[in-house]
Amino acid sequence: MARTPHDSFHGVVLPDALEADRSKGDQIREILETMVRGLPPGTLLPSERSIADRYGVARMTVRQKVNELVSLGAIRRSSGAGTFVGEPKLRQGTTMGSFSEEMRARGMTPGARILSARTRQAGDALAGRLGLASGDRVIEIRRLRTADGTPMAVEHTHLPAARFPDLPRLLGDDLSLYDTLRAHWNVEVERATHRVSAVALDAEVAALLGAEPALPSFLVDRLAWDRFGAVVEWGRSTYRGDFYDVVFEVGPPS
Amino acid sequence: MARTPHDSFHGVVLPDALEADRSKGDQIREILETMVRGLPPGTLLPSERSIADRYGVARMTVRQKVNELVSLGAIRRSSGAGTFVGEPKLRQGTTMGSFSEEMRARGMTPGARILSARTRQAGDALAGRLGLASGDRVIEIRRLRTADGTPMAVEHTHLPAARFPDLPRLLGDDLSLYDTLRAHWNVEVERATHRVSAVALDAEVAALLGAEPALPSFLVDRLAWDRFGAVVEWGRSTYRGDFYDVVFEVGPPS
Repeated sequence: MARTPHDSFHGVVLPDALEADRSKGDQIREILETMVRGLPPGTLLPSERSIADRYGVARMTVRQKVNELVSLGAIRRSSGAGTFVGEPKLRQGTTMGSFSEEMRARGMTPGARILSARTRQAGDALAGRLGLASGDRVIEIRRLRTADGTPMAVEHTHLPAARFPDLPRLLGDDLSLYDTLRAHWNVEVERATHRVSAVALDAEVAALLGAEPALPSFLVDRLAWDRFGAVVEWGRSTYRGDFYDVVFEVGPPS
Repeated sequence: MARTPHDSFHGVVLPDALEADRSKGDQIREILETMVRGLPPGTLLPSERSIADRYGVARMTVRQKVNELVSLGAIRRSSGAGTFVGEPKLRQGTTMGSFSEEMRARGMTPGARILSARTRQAGDALAGRLGLASGDRVIEIRRLRTADGTPMAVEHTHLPAARFPDLPRLLGDDLSLYDTLRAHWNVEVERATHRVSAVALDAEVAALLGAEPALPSFLVDRLAWDRFGAVVEWGRSTYRGDFYDVVFEVGPPS
């Protein structure tokens, strides 16, 4: 009987066996990625045990690679029910304007729950970032950002209070901050810099996001200017690493 | 006696006390950041206990915020010796060409240790990324990348073997891949896309980098093209999150 060259799962072609001279973990990860790429979101994946048996590797090896893809959002784990192909991730890219604009561009409904909005004095560091003097008043807003109702990010931002005096009263839940600035002060954000760090979610933010504590995630420091070069906001937001990637294009090395 | 409005540490002005109506953790983090910003790398920081006592917060709160800044590289912990101001982080930004070019631009000496370099057949996924047919030969290279001798990243990349047949023999330790492609094949990388995910370091990569396992880090998928639109390489590299940030600028929302 002719040996079939490939195994398959729901029509996705998989290797018949692992290659002897390459890392087993790398190959198991490639097999999992091949399934994820080839199957619709929500498809039930084979059990870790069956993959381990099928390819003759330790179950811990499979579990570790499944966990990696879970933390990347490519696979979702449902306790008791197994593992499933995840939804495609959102990309935070160089075209990003605001959270609301980005979600709308993807056909999703952006939402926001205001966790706190108040006015306080800026310390030296915050004043410096906003181009203010130490002790000047700033508006501090913390919001839980959602897309189609799912918590995606905790946003923590600061704006000069003298410029946007009534903002805490005007910014209701589910309103876009940038739409509000545009409507009431005719302010447009013209450019922004993002500094992205890799962090483990702390317990408080994880609880707000409904995510596992210590989930690898992005901390994004954002400084945004208007067309006249004045700083509009300085913020530090946390984006779930299992729902987000950061994507950008680079030109030729100069 | 007049009350001094501010405390200070080595001349860095710190708040006299915490504000009652803001998160203690946020304020402790700001105090730590103020010290880190104002002091040279390598400066010994006050103990967690002394900060906790000074501001009347739980020692765990201080420890958690110190740990956050350690995982971001702003603070370095030396077992037994205390915590110190960290070196400034490297930025992986939109101007980045190759690792070697980026490090040279910073006045650092780029290095590379080849972990493996070999030719193998491409599976469907890899062939698709490189614009090859399944089963075509690819060169697979894993390198430990260093800056001034310190391990910074584990680079894992793939190139079409038919185009760069002798590459595994030509690419010695500490050579730039892009310099080698330029010198032997007159190939220039013209543009690349980066997809950055947040990950916890796995044990193997952590050991190679001399970093803590599970350190929040960046997984960077890089696809690079030459000026004719042919794919030169597809790679997946891991950059230490305590040494690297990703920085980019965004234009106006369109």
